[in-house]
Amino acid sequence: MQGFRFGGAVALALALGTAAATAQELRIAEIGSFHVGGETVTLESLPRRSITFSAGTPPLEIDPNGSFQAGQMYAQYVRLAEPEARYPLLLWHGGGLTGVTWETTPDGRPGWQMFFLRQGWDVYVSDAVERGRSGWSRYPEIFEGEPVFRTMGEGWHLFRVGPKDGWAQEAAQREAYADTRFPVEAWNQFTRQSVPRWVTTDPLIQAGYDALVQKVCPCVIVVHSQGGNFGFRAALNAPDKVKALVAIEPSGSPDPATTDVSALGNVPHLLVWGDQFEDSPFWQKIRGKLGSWAEALEKGGVRVDTLDLPSRGIEGNSHMPMMDTNSEEVAALVQAWLAEQGLMR
Amino acid sequence: MQGFRFGGAVALALALGTAAATAQELRIAEIGSFHVGGETVTLESLPRRSITFSAGTPPLEIDPNGSFQAGQMYAQYVRLAEPEARYPLLLWHGGGLTGVTWETTPDGRPGWQMFFLRQGWDVYVSDAVERGRSGWSRYPEIFEGEPVFRTMGEGWHLFRVGPKDGWAQEAAQREAYADTRFPVEAWNQFTRQSVPRWVTTDPLIQAGYDALVQKVCPCVIVVHSQGGNFGFRAALNAPDKVKALVAIEPSGSPDPATTDVSALGNVPHLLVWGDQFEDSPFWQKIRGKLGSWAEALEKGGVRVDTLDLPSRGIEGNSHMPMMDTNSEEVAALVQAWLAEQGLMR
Repeated sequence: MQGFRFGGAVALALALGTAAATAQELRIAEIGSFHVGGETVTLESLPRRSITFSAGTPPLEIDPNGSFQAGQMYAQYVRLAEPEARYPLLLWHGGGLTGVTWETTPDGRPGWQMFFLRQGWDVYVSDAVERGRSGWSRYPEIFEGEPVFRTMGEGWHLFRVGPKDGWAQEAAQREAYADTRFPVEAWNQFTRQSVPRWVTTDPLIQAGYDALVQKVCPCVIVVHSQGGNFGFRAALNAPDKVKALVAIEPSGSPDPATTDVSALGNVPHLLVWGDQFEDSPFWQKIRGKLGSWAEALEKGGVRVDTLDLPSRGIEGNSHMPMMDTNSEEVAALVQAWLAEQGLMR
Repeated sequence: MQGFRFGGAVALALALGTAAATAQELRIAEIGSFHVGGETVTLESLPRRSITFSAGTPPLEIDPNGSFQAGQMYAQYVRLAEPEARYPLLLWHGGGLTGVTWETTPDGRPGWQMFFLRQGWDVYVSDAVERGRSGWSRYPEIFEGEPVFRTMGEGWHLFRVGPKDGWAQEAAQREAYADTRFPVEAWNQFTRQSVPRWVTTDPLIQAGYDALVQKVCPCVIVVHSQGGNFGFRAALNAPDKVKALVAIEPSGSPDPATTDVSALGNVPHLLVWGDQFEDSPFWQKIRGKLGSWAEALEKGGVRVDTLDLPSRGIEGNSHMPMMDTNSEEVAALVQAWLAEQGLMR
């Protein structure tokens, strides 16, 4: 943690400001969306496929050949009538999820999309290539390999809500950390946000994000989990276009040993971490790697701040702070840091 | 066409009103989203699968068993600070597409989501089960059969933009109808909105829409193409909750011979048709069937109006009037009809 103190007074002022803003209406210039990036892929000379669409019906012959769009990415924007921030804010979700991460929380509270709109940012919420409204492509012909489906139990420990993975239909039958901030009764609702993912499509996803940056930035980018690596690389690929990068529980980064970060001198970074790391060797290892990345950034002259929530007295946050019951408290700390970087008008 | 005349004066007044509204900011109470419907499906005793995720890497053993959410549907809402309509408006897209249908047009103009917000409606845009942010499930274990991928050429004739299917990268190389209103230079951008679809999931999709109606209605529903059949059935399944149904180029309906429509007496219907039917036996046949459905509705005491755009002097509309260059003109006629039903405050 360099330079910036998340002091009690700042946090309190922001919390009060937020409470007032919640009641307030938004003045919006436009809500819209687009697809960006991707390419035309033509499949030729593939054999016709015999597909039984429905049990009991005769198989149909399908010609899989033709030209298809592949690798495009969906983004939705909400532009304010009078934004108070200097740049738009881009919200990039994590693995196996979509932009829904940033919308209403699983237990029905306004999410970070609304929070940052109310703070005066134009907000862009995107779905990574292959997920959500970005669509996906025939595999293995266009996307390599097969998609992976996360079970409803897999995230419980992975996202540090409780001490072990495994799942039961009833919330009461699942063991959560006593102080968890995740709205555990809304876990099943949260798992409805899951979408299949490939593990072979990182280059396509990165290209989509880079195309988004070229289209809508200069901007500020907030990334979560798997989005971390894409965000760090997007900043390296367009350092003049990224005015700040906030990484919420990033799960990966470029290799600190071999990456030249010197172009990032004007891209301040904030890393945000929740609680329950002591119970997760998996996350300890990731955090160690991200620590090396932060160190490499700092050595290269990049400003890096780290917001470790428990060390600020904010305990119990999961891997999903934008859904936790104190989601607005965490968002207010991020907003305070962004304001301190001179990003508000 | 019963009762209502889409007169020149009404259309002109609306067109002028719309031009004024376009410049105007929206006052928004909340933007949010949720998933509705679906169930928990547990896969057991399936053999482990050996998957090569990436060429050249050793195969990984994957356990496909576990509990999964399946059949849930995503909906996003924009609620106005002071709505001028009595009920929210639900926009349901067609086959192989998502809610993006109603957002910004492929050539970058505000879509019907914005149009109806500016007319004073709270607007809900959803993705049908299996598509977009609704996610999709392992097949054939949970979803039956295989997904279908639409080529970039398939829609050109199917959506009545030009005289035959087939596709070329350059717009100039594709033959469009001379008077088409589809923004043909944005065709490739439009195809980026395509998502895979199953042909086995109609019951899941219907259940999702029915769950949405139970959650957010009373409401008005606007359906497009494949959404038509889902909308007609949703009205039959909850006639007290659907205050009006607008079917834009519907591609199907329940069987008029065997369906009791008497419960729909308070659900006025508007059917909207574009141009170029003379060149499409496929659509002539569909329109004939829909004519039988409209007749059955009228015989059952349901008010049915039909807006045949060419017969009103509005020529060249494709199957996608919400994307055509005169999209706001068509929307204004729909709005005039809705207002005439007493649905504005």
